Amino acid sequence: MLTDLSPDQLATYRSSQTAPGGFDEFWAETLAEAGKHDIDVRLHEVTTNLTTLSTYDVTFRGYAGQDVRAWLRVPAHATGPLPTVVQYVGYGGGRGHALENLLWASAGFAHLQMDTRGQGSGWSLGDTPDEAPSQPQVPGVVTRGILDPATYYYRRMFTDAVRAVDAARSLDVVDNARIAVLGGSQGGGNALAVAGLRDDLAAAVAFVPFLCDFPRALQVTESYPYKEIIDYLVVHRTDVDAVRRTLAFFDGVNFAARASAPALFSAALRDTVCPPSTVFGAFHEYTGDKQIEVWEFNGHEGGGILDEARALEFLRGRLGAGGI
Amino acid sequence: MLTDLSPDQLATYRSSQTAPGGFDEFWAETLAEAGKHDIDVRLHEVTTNLTTLSTYDVTFRGYAGQDVRAWLRVPAHATGPLPTVVQYVGYGGGRGHALENLLWASAGFAHLQMDTRGQGSGWSLGDTPDEAPSQPQVPGVVTRGILDPATYYYRRMFTDAVRAVDAARSLDVVDNARIAVLGGSQGGGNALAVAGLRDDLAAAVAFVPFLCDFPRALQVTESYPYKEIIDYLVVHRTDVDAVRRTLAFFDGVNFAARASAPALFSAALRDTVCPPSTVFGAFHEYTGDKQIEVWEFNGHEGGGILDEARALEFLRGRLGAGGI
Amino acid sequence: MLTDLSPDQLATYRSSQTAPGGFDEFWAETLAEAGKHDIDVRLHEVTTNLTTLSTYDVTFRGYAGQDVRAWLRVPAHATGPLPTVVQYVGYGGGRGHALENLLWASAGFAHLQMDTRGQGSGWSLGDTPDEAPSQPQVPGVVTRGILDPATYYYRRMFTDAVRAVDAARSLDVVDNARIAVLGGSQGGGNALAVAGLRDDLAAAVAFVPFLCDFPRALQVTESYPYKEIIDYLVVHRTDVDAVRRTLAFFDGVNFAARASAPALFSAALRDTVCPPSTVFGAFHEYTGDKQIEVWEFNGHEGGGILDEARALEFLRGRLGAGGI
Amino acid sequence: MLTDLSPDQLATYRSSQTAPGGFDEFWAETLAEAGKHDIDVRLHEVTTNLTTLSTYDVTFRGYAGQDVRAWLRVPAHATGPLPTVVQYVGYGGGRGHALENLLWASAGFAHLQMDTRGQGSGWSLGDTPDEAPSQPQVPGVVTRGILDPATYYYRRMFTDAVRAVDAARSLDVVDNARIAVLGGSQGGGNALAVAGLRDDLAAAVAFVPFLCDFPRALQVTESYPYKEIIDYLVVHRTDVDAVRRTLAFFDGVNFAARASAPALFSAALRDTVCPPSTVFGAFHEYTGDKQIEVWEFNGHEGGGILDEARALEFLRGRLGAGGI
Amino acid sequence: MLTDLSPDQLATYRSSQTAPGGFDEFWAETLAEAGKHDIDVRLHEVTTNLTTLSTYDVTFRGYAGQDVRAWLRVPAHATGPLPTVVQYVGYGGGRGHALENLLWASAGFAHLQMDTRGQGSGWSLGDTPDEAPSQPQVPGVVTRGILDPATYYYRRMFTDAVRAVDAARSLDVVDNARIAVLGGSQGGGNALAVAGLRDDLAAAVAFVPFLCDFPRALQVTESYPYKEIIDYLVVHRTDVDAVRRTLAFFDGVNFAARASAPALFSAALRDTVCPPSTVFGAFHEYTGDKQIEVWEFNGHEGGGILDEARALEFLRGRLGAGGI
Amino acid sequence: MLTDLSPDQLATYRSSQTAPGGFDEFWAETLAEAGKHDIDVRLHEVTTNLTTLSTYDVTFRGYAGQDVRAWLRVPAHATGPLPTVVQYVGYGGGRGHALENLLWASAGFAHLQMDTRGQGSGWSLGDTPDEAPSQPQVPGVVTRGILDPATYYYRRMFTDAVRAVDAARSLDVVDNARIAVLGGSQGGGNALAVAGLRDDLAAAVAFVPFLCDFPRALQVTESYPYKEIIDYLVVHRTDVDAVRRTLAFFDGVNFAARASAPALFSAALRDTVCPPSTVFGAFHEYTGDKQIEVWEFNGHEGGGILDEARALEFLRGRLGAGGI
Repeated sequence: MLTDLSPDQLATYRSSQTAPGGFDEFWAETLAEAGKHDIDVRLHEVTTNLTTLSTYDVTFRGYAGQDVRAWLRVPAHATGPLPTVVQYVGYGGGRGHALENLLWASAGFAHLQMDTRGQGSGWSLGDTPDEAPSQPQVPGVVTRGILDPATYYYRRMFTDAVRAVDAARSLDVVDNARIAVLGGSQGGGNALAVAGLRDDLAAAVAFVPFLCDFPRALQVTESYPYKEIIDYLVVHRTDVDAVRRTLAFFDGVNFAARASAPALFSAALRDTVCPPSTVFGAFHEYTGDKQIEVWEFNGHEGGGILDEARALEFLRGRLGAGGI
Repeated sequence: MLTDLSPDQLATYRSSQTAPGGFDEFWAETLAEAGKHDIDVRLHEVTTNLTTLSTYDVTFRGYAGQDVRAWLRVPAHATGPLPTVVQYVGYGGGRGHALENLLWASAGFAHLQMDTRGQGSGWSLGDTPDEAPSQPQVPGVVTRGILDPATYYYRRMFTDAVRAVDAARSLDVVDNARIAVLGGSQGGGNALAVAGLRDDLAAAVAFVPFLCDFPRALQVTESYPYKEIIDYLVVHRTDVDAVRRTLAFFDGVNFAARASAPALFSAALRDTVCPPSTVFGAFHEYTGDKQIEVWEFNGHEGGGILDEARALEFLRGRLGAGGI
Repeated sequence: MLTDLSPDQLATYRSSQTAPGGFDEFWAETLAEAGKHDIDVRLHEVTTNLTTLSTYDVTFRGYAGQDVRAWLRVPAHATGPLPTVVQYVGYGGGRGHALENLLWASAGFAHLQMDTRGQGSGWSLGDTPDEAPSQPQVPGVVTRGILDPATYYYRRMFTDAVRAVDAARSLDVVDNARIAVLGGSQGGGNALAVAGLRDDLAAAVAFVPFLCDFPRALQVTESYPYKEIIDYLVVHRTDVDAVRRTLAFFDGVNFAARASAPALFSAALRDTVCPPSTVFGAFHEYTGDKQIEVWEFNGHEGGGILDEARALEFLRGRLGAGGI
Repeated sequence: MLTDLSPDQLATYRSSQTAPGGFDEFWAETLAEAGKHDIDVRLHEVTTNLTTLSTYDVTFRGYAGQDVRAWLRVPAHATGPLPTVVQYVGYGGGRGHALENLLWASAGFAHLQMDTRGQGSGWSLGDTPDEAPSQPQVPGVVTRGILDPATYYYRRMFTDAVRAVDAARSLDVVDNARIAVLGGSQGGGNALAVAGLRDDLAAAVAFVPFLCDFPRALQVTESYPYKEIIDYLVVHRTDVDAVRRTLAFFDGVNFAARASAPALFSAALRDTVCPPSTVFGAFHEYTGDKQIEVWEFNGHEGGGILDEARALEFLRGRLGAGGI
Repeated sequence: MLTDLSPDQLATYRSSQTAPGGFDEFWAETLAEAGKHDIDVRLHEVTTNLTTLSTYDVTFRGYAGQDVRAWLRVPAHATGPLPTVVQYVGYGGGRGHALENLLWASAGFAHLQMDTRGQGSGWSLGDTPDEAPSQPQVPGVVTRGILDPATYYYRRMFTDAVRAVDAARSLDVVDNARIAVLGGSQGGGNALAVAGLRDDLAAAVAFVPFLCDFPRALQVTESYPYKEIIDYLVVHRTDVDAVRRTLAFFDGVNFAARASAPALFSAALRDTVCPPSTVFGAFHEYTGDKQIEVWEFNGHEGGGILDEARALEFLRGRLGAGGI
Repeated sequence: MLTDLSPDQLATYRSSQTAPGGFDEFWAETLAEAGKHDIDVRLHEVTTNLTTLSTYDVTFRGYAGQDVRAWLRVPAHATGPLPTVVQYVGYGGGRGHALENLLWASAGFAHLQMDTRGQGSGWSLGDTPDEAPSQPQVPGVVTRGILDPATYYYRRMFTDAVRAVDAARSLDVVDNARIAVLGGSQGGGNALAVAGLRDDLAAAVAFVPFLCDFPRALQVTESYPYKEIIDYLVVHRTDVDAVRRTLAFFDGVNFAARASAPALFSAALRDTVCPPSTVFGAFHEYTGDKQIEVWEFNGHEGGGILDEARALEFLRGRLGAGGI
């Protein structure tokens, strides 16, 4: 059953979201504040029993200079500089285990997979805390600090994500002219945010991205994690306007309107978690070169491995072939 | 369907939980640390359109001197000193609205209802943040900081709960010799913790208490919020021992073994959220005078209003009749 | 996910329901028949351990002179005459326990809470039987006697509700010029019916009312208790017309078109039990002064305590402040 | 998953139910009271387009002389006297449509299928009201009037069932020496009750019977309709003893201990609606010749058509071959 | 809740499905190939303990000459030739037990009930295998061989269904001028296919037919068995076009456009398994005389016994009264 | 909630399953019959954009000489002979996409991942048909041909699995003395079957294996895919003995009792799909060196990546380090 717009309707749909006054200043200040802390990347090679890849446990300074973890995977014996993928993780997960997620390094890319502050217990492990007071909130992070852009959880996470590119740029193995950001769901939302906040990326990939077009998402889905916001407003009945205002500072629609890197999106017509209209809401505003893969019968799994295969083709076209 | 022990088995069941080494020191230090901060109770009367009761918005200093909110309700024109009920709230809720929960003041008691740090968005509003870094965790608070007793969420909340009694004691309307602690579910877990950590209470009431007998709870229930711990261990497979150790510092079984105030418990034979065996695990260790009401056909709602009516009788017997 | 009309659509929506021929005669005869029985109010004060309120167990004669129970709660020592709230209860509940529902009396009103014939076992206790033969029906009361207006369950219940106001009027503590009817869900449906059948009310309050705009309700909801009607028609396939005809005699839309008391409604945009369009169906026909509170993110819980706080303001404006 | 006892345990299980004092007197008086009304059987042949069977719409006087409906189906042109099956229907259903349930008449039996008072809207149509006041109850009939044996719903229904045999005996086409009672689930509970209250039956058949061994049923199942009783006790917390007492007057275990007709039971090991232990609870007490078919992998559907095929064999053995 | 089109919309809805190139040739070749095998009907009378009917176990040669089973039921002692109903079974079921489904023979028809290859384990027993290799597929048969019309499961089943009429025509008891095909759900889909592939039928009856208007079905339902196709396409993302092409060869819309026998359809407005629009998609294209019964409040159960009663009237009108 | 035995009980539990007469002959004949067909391995390198690995599309002859597909992945430029892992896939999946499952080759092993006949549409793609007639069955493959060992689906699949090792042995890159079989769930069941049917393996790994200890599985789980058997027996009530007999020829318990390769098992205490007792049923009978990893809080996901990391350690210990 189609639960959202039809393909024809998606082609012409436009989000009602707009950037609130002070959007650019808010992010400029936020990143400037983080920038006061040295990126301070620390690498420790880990033993994995893998023979074709080398893996490093990475720590860098993210929001407010707080330590953020990541994995760096590269082809064994690669000398670089390599084309590079900075990856962000979906909701509830962390950077996971060193033996997981071998695709990008096996394809000859440097692969920096950022951890997710305070999550990392739902389906893959994380190692990074979220250091901030927690106002009354519903379980999860989507309503943490939601009454004010300054305290909202995603202010911290998006800043980490921007800084992860700085961390990558500091590494010898990375070719700074060939860095892409990539992620699915929440990871896709991060990728779009970074694409809107940096102008030095070679490409951006967002599979079925979360955190896009909140006004419509709150109308058309009852699925988590968007539903955390609804649960919050069910109890915080008088805070609807404050919440809407905060969300506008973090909406992929607004980041898309500021992005320049070539981008690949995907959307799925039966996705009730990140409904396709919300993805198209961001896609249509995206100001760089862009393409979108639409999966007619899929839900939030989107194209699955075909999305990744498609992204691998796309990134080879933009960043060149991987090394070994 | 009985999903836990039968009444006969409950009568003889004993929990396997024991106090870990350093239990008393841990709590002594924790409370001493909090005690360095003045309780600093602030009261503001609020307008409610009620004619029989007066209501005050209360703020006091809890864990680490952080501000904790509460409601104080008293019979209008009461001069005191009154018998007093300090109440703690169930999981996900906060102190709620000033117009809610009128029973205890209508019965002539001073009624101090403590807010719940960082919760208060699930079914009733809260106004108190949880100020602490959040390690990777599953949604909710039950696994927040769970790898170490020092960082565990309930260290902060139980300390708030102990301090709420100090806040009550500082009020003129309160008769310090006639203070009871009371709560259901998580609120009951708090009441037991306070009963184990203070020796100046006139009574304690715990309806279907949560946070009791973790070793058994993890065996016999798949319901939230205990299931948050299971969800955590599903992913954090190598942290089972650390989690068990932390939980032992917060188990109602261990607090019960240190309590002296006369206590009223309730348990429900079909309660899958706080299974009756876990309640009996604490009840059997309780070292003060004690009685327990068992509801044969109820789930976690327990005795509902009958539990409260029963508690009102019980507290009138221990604290004397309310004033007006 | 919005499951019903948007705010803009609600503003212009009109119900297709119309009063069937003989509507007014049917109700005139029904009430006249009940009126042949003396109201015969009996009061017995009950012991509650409350010090600020007095509570009475009330019995009066309702439909066909059958005994109907209620609670009367008033401020202790109140002499009256007081502004008065006659309250009706939601589906499945009864008048409950004497210690519950203290708000209205604590605000200085006389509060008469009517029991619900034959229900009162779902979430709060009742003490009043439904004396009538039961034709084949689906579980619940919504299809009891539904093939004929004369035998329909709500003929009896609405008559009880009208008579409850007569019962209130007979009491010394009640100021007959300051009586309001109030209820949520089924209780709101009762309040609207009484508002349409009496012209001596000072106000009416209906939170997320049930029993409104049946033609639309049968189209847009699959939730109980409306679904009882659908379940019935699934089996009684040839009785669709008879059922529609009966329902028209009990539709809040038709009562609203005959009401004169100032009214406060509430509706919730995500209410699948009593969809907002069905509430607006009644609201738009309401012929007295009216206002409606709309909760954007709530389901059938509507505004919860905020609905009650709002009603308290509203009734103080219409009936004056409560006594003590 | 086995949700009840294993076959070995079932073989030795005995119910804890016993007949309460006054059991036999209660039923003797109940039936005597009904017996004061003439059975007054009225038959009207109906047009069905069937060529091999004749069908009659039957009305007789049941409990308190109230009219009860039934279908009579016989082979077309049968002259009788025929062996006869009096059938009772499962929970929620009525006698259904004239074209349904052709098996027994096609096998050459007279087949009297009794309607179910006040039900008949859940899955098959009924035409018989339940004429009695309805105390507060949970939806359904299992708790209707449950506080007193005199007012309990099944007093009326079991009396109807006993009277249905009287109705059959009054018909020329029926061979009074060859009447069996039969039913599944609630129908099986009726068959057992009739077998315990009459001594003129040639056989009794009870497939997966309901209304047996209440003490165990309330322990081992959470399925409806037994769960109606649990739902009731969840709210009516102080009526547990009264409910247990009433149920003892209607328990198939007690009727089985008074039965003499040869009987066929069936039970299913994965039946969570009428758990096999409750069936064995009645079976082991059954004082006539008896046999039981046990279905290892089935739920409440039991043996389905194989139960009926087995019953047809069994009844041909006890009552002789059908006519034509 | 209406989950599909309203009655007004259904009246004007037209399916987008069209017959693919080669449709008629495909079926001509398929049936010609089957026709190379003699029908070879084998009958064995079975003992059923029924006295009004005779029952035969039938075997005939279906697709590729493979043996297909059926039941033949006729009035006992009927000499014929009789009007005849060839019936097809719903999804997951087989021909069932000899004692089931007595209606049509009891009404004086010869009744040939065809078994369902490879199903017959879901709710009624089957005895016929599906002899063909099974490509990777989702559980069930709806995606078995779906990448090519030549290998699709329903090619084999529809051919069996056409041949079942040949089998009936070979029997002395059957009046070849008075044969109807009939079925519900999948059985209705079979009846429509046969009606489109034969020109010698006296009538066709399709209750809530499955396998109609696939383009719309894939848009408007998430229920099984249509959902098997969606599940398949979720994984076989690149095979969407091949699957659509195959389905067009088996769509009741295309068979309806080639049918000539008078037909009775039924549809149910709340049917989420075979949504009413898909039924109307076929109905509107049906080229013979036609009528449709619409059930406003029913789901996939449609009219139930009323559908059968209606069909009995309809077939008596087209085929004449049954014999005995 | 523990849904199966406790750790202590698991340590002493023994399965009741025993090898039926003719077990060894059945398998000897089955494999001999397959052995009449040349293994005929065909390799085609595929383009994947990976730079560290080479991937080949493999076809070999399995059961009855039918073509079975697989992926072969090896480190790019590896010359071999390499230690080798032959992997089998879980229920519903196929060999998937060439870009998936890179772990074993990245660790320096030759990795042959066998496709799954007739499945491969549930969560990962397959390319191999199941060529055999399909008797009436429930959806899925677990009851396909279940009435006779000769026709049972797993006869064909286990034979494919044995032949996959022959296919591996025929490759130059494979070191025949260092071949392990490995799989999870259904793949683990395959690995155990192969371990019981071959004596030339260096190791076997079975994560939470399916297809073990059917007698207990049918008692303790209601989860699919074991439940397919229960669903079948619900309808095929008289085939219980035949089904039990067939299953005994395919039970991992019986294969374990014939195995010699060192083995690593895993089990999860909250696994309701493959309950831990059924895994221990096989483990305790295993006649080679053995060890088992038990996950206390996990369900059927078992140890997830930790199971794989553990297996990598285990296989490096048995087969030596991988090459590059």
